Amino acid sequence: MPAPSPETIDAVLRQVDAGLPQARETLFDLLRIPSISAQPARAADCARAAAWCRDQLAGLGFSAEVRPTKGHPVVVAHHPGPTGYTGPHVLFYGHYDVQPVDPVDLWTSPPFEPQYLDGPRGKRFVARGAVDDKGQAMMFVEALRAWTIAGGGIPARITVLLEGEEEVGSKNLEPFLAAHKQELAADLALISDTGMWDIDTPAITARLRGMSYVQITLKAAKRDLHSGLFGGSALNPINALTKILGDLHDDQGRIQLPGFYDGIKPVSNVQRAQWDSLGFDEGAFLGGIGLTAPIGERGYSPLERLWARPTADINGIWGGYQGEGSKTVIPAEASAKITFRLVPGQDETAVFGQFQRFVADRLPPGATVEYQGGGGTPGIEVATDSPWVRAAQDALAAEYGKPAVLVGSGGSIPVVTSLHKVLGIDALLMGFGLDDDQVHSPNEKFEERCFHHGIRSHARLLAKFAGG
Amino acid sequence: MPAPSPETIDAVLRQVDAGLPQARETLFDLLRIPSISAQPARAADCARAAAWCRDQLAGLGFSAEVRPTKGHPVVVAHHPGPTGYTGPHVLFYGHYDVQPVDPVDLWTSPPFEPQYLDGPRGKRFVARGAVDDKGQAMMFVEALRAWTIAGGGIPARITVLLEGEEEVGSKNLEPFLAAHKQELAADLALISDTGMWDIDTPAITARLRGMSYVQITLKAAKRDLHSGLFGGSALNPINALTKILGDLHDDQGRIQLPGFYDGIKPVSNVQRAQWDSLGFDEGAFLGGIGLTAPIGERGYSPLERLWARPTADINGIWGGYQGEGSKTVIPAEASAKITFRLVPGQDETAVFGQFQRFVADRLPPGATVEYQGGGGTPGIEVATDSPWVRAAQDALAAEYGKPAVLVGSGGSIPVVTSLHKVLGIDALLMGFGLDDDQVHSPNEKFEERCFHHGIRSHARLLAKFAGG
Repeated sequence: MPAPSPETIDAVLRQVDAGLPQARETLFDLLRIPSISAQPARAADCARAAAWCRDQLAGLGFSAEVRPTKGHPVVVAHHPGPTGYTGPHVLFYGHYDVQPVDPVDLWTSPPFEPQYLDGPRGKRFVARGAVDDKGQAMMFVEALRAWTIAGGGIPARITVLLEGEEEVGSKNLEPFLAAHKQELAADLALISDTGMWDIDTPAITARLRGMSYVQITLKAAKRDLHSGLFGGSALNPINALTKILGDLHDDQGRIQLPGFYDGIKPVSNVQRAQWDSLGFDEGAFLGGIGLTAPIGERGYSPLERLWARPTADINGIWGGYQGEGSKTVIPAEASAKITFRLVPGQDETAVFGQFQRFVADRLPPGATVEYQGGGGTPGIEVATDSPWVRAAQDALAAEYGKPAVLVGSGGSIPVVTSLHKVLGIDALLMGFGLDDDQVHSPNEKFEERCFHHGIRSHARLLAKFAGG
Repeated sequence: MPAPSPETIDAVLRQVDAGLPQARETLFDLLRIPSISAQPARAADCARAAAWCRDQLAGLGFSAEVRPTKGHPVVVAHHPGPTGYTGPHVLFYGHYDVQPVDPVDLWTSPPFEPQYLDGPRGKRFVARGAVDDKGQAMMFVEALRAWTIAGGGIPARITVLLEGEEEVGSKNLEPFLAAHKQELAADLALISDTGMWDIDTPAITARLRGMSYVQITLKAAKRDLHSGLFGGSALNPINALTKILGDLHDDQGRIQLPGFYDGIKPVSNVQRAQWDSLGFDEGAFLGGIGLTAPIGERGYSPLERLWARPTADINGIWGGYQGEGSKTVIPAEASAKITFRLVPGQDETAVFGQFQRFVADRLPPGATVEYQGGGGTPGIEVATDSPWVRAAQDALAAEYGKPAVLVGSGGSIPVVTSLHKVLGIDALLMGFGLDDDQVHSPNEKFEERCFHHGIRSHARLLAKFAGG
């Protein structure tokens, strides 16, 4: 199989440009399907979205099927690529489900009636799922369409996997991957569910933080007590829990779990220098949410704290009386939920035990504790010297005229871990969202410019896979 | 007016003994009225209980009335005592309202069908209000009745004040006292709403802790944040609140509010020695509620910690996600309610400001705080060298054959403060409850032996007031 010629690639890119209005209309059809995975009443809409995606891929010559799971179905589609193809087998992952739309009265238009509006950076698409992830997934499909129309056909061996439960925790995905391990075997996973550095600067997400979750309930007396009659003698579990959790961080912002930092791989000087060169404005980042000063571990830059250092955040706490006025009670118990964000090198299975030891070292006599949690997902660092990352860097540099930034993400993308664990493949995270896209919020939007260049970038990357 | 003779007092006490079955039946009539002040549906029952009390006192020759308030009514009754009476004018305070009965399925008999049952220490009365406070208030009424039948009449100048909102915070009592200040003027207040040391050892409650309440809400970002995308940079208000509240006590159990301990009067050596001689078993006290070890301030005995040292107890805390499973949120705010128990010498109006300074000294940049609370009730110490305390000690010693213990109470009795503040009189707290009476709980009971000796003690105390 010959590598695609520069003329072929140009023809494909011109087709992307010419086909943009049609690509937008096609995406809008998908955006009109209210495939909210969290709402049982929307199950038929999820099935409808899956069938719609299957039909799109089948129309491009894929053997495409909707496969059942215990929850919403998965779309699986295969294309062998051109005869004699010797490049990588690419597994493209995306999701057709979307977040709920509440609070719906904050939307300026109905969430499932996509709008084509003017904005400060050109046209934008406004709808639930515009960017997360229908818009991003459809960029890849449109790149395939342009290749089919103007490039002689699908240029690479491709499996497409679109799930319908990403917004509700993907709990049926890992069993599905395991049950179809042979069928889904590939050389790399390609995912468009992340963001750019800014609208002119492409990015590849090369680090993801992992996570470990724990819930603690601290119990004291066997019943609620009168704080007058027992105060000064009887253990108060809220007092005790705040004292323990108040000790999670030392005065340098370091987390005091024993062994918590063991194994962390330091960020390379090259990586740190690149991040420093991005000119991240933490004041503006926090100002946007009404905060005036950062917290976090001393001695690290803002982006290191957000992308490459672990955290401990109490996500919820409760105990005793929460109603109006006062109630002079020493309650029987108090509880809290904590998530630890983890970075590469940390053992995500050890954090639960470390937390239990941290608590045991501080537990007052007479108190008992119960836990939920354990396990977790590890922090992930993509090997940036892989040929696929280089291929994506080349594609993005050609498209944008400047190099792609290797960024991190403070959040977790559990599917990346699942794909690595079950299928043994690394993920290439090339996304085109912007920080202000209102993901999961009212008035979610996707810039047409991002959509357009995203399709072109995918078309270029497909050429790279094909040796072009 | 001659003082009552020993023969008269003996006759009165024999009448108490002979009248005990009738006194029990009379109390049971009152216990059958479900006068739960917290439940609006029981307002008519509260009015019925008030009328019942008025009728009892009118039957003893009092000029007795039911007086309206903005809530449940107050019973006020006056008797001038014998002609030429020169002793103290006694204001007897009690309350006819009772606590709700939930959880009603834990009662072994219907709460408003009083039972006369055998127990390990003789007969007992089981019903809501058996001891708190219908049983205790009726002891005084029965002592008056015995004096009327066998002693020649009411032996002292007496005002009876029975309120119907003690169990819901007495919020209409202080205005009522203020509006009837002249009418309610007296030399001392006598209250039976406290306990004995044990069934054989009478007690006078000479100390009450006061209280100050505060609610704090700590606010950070203007909306909930994703803990992955913001963790390590954005302030988490639960983390901050636990760190601040975890610092309420130092490692000696001392409360770290600036100036909190200023002005506290030390307990006298005599008082401390008497408390030490009581042989209080803190292990048994805590064992009964399922605790194995005390907490509290180092360097003080258990009874000092419970009666004569201030405390800080977090009564409630809440923030973030409290449902099933995990939610990776950094919430916008977190809240807690705290009560400080106070002892004589502390300025109850200063604690709110001290807490605000304590928080301000520890508040991370970018956080704001809102408060509710302020004010409070002071800790109270009864002057134990007053003639009325000595009269009660003499009456109790004569009845029980051993001296009464001067005890403290860790709780507050706001009416004591109100009587002192509005009417300018001290309270004499002579009560006959036991620790295991299940006050406010299912199966509330009152030992008949306590009821019987309580009536006799009140009869003896009335003789003392009359110079006998």
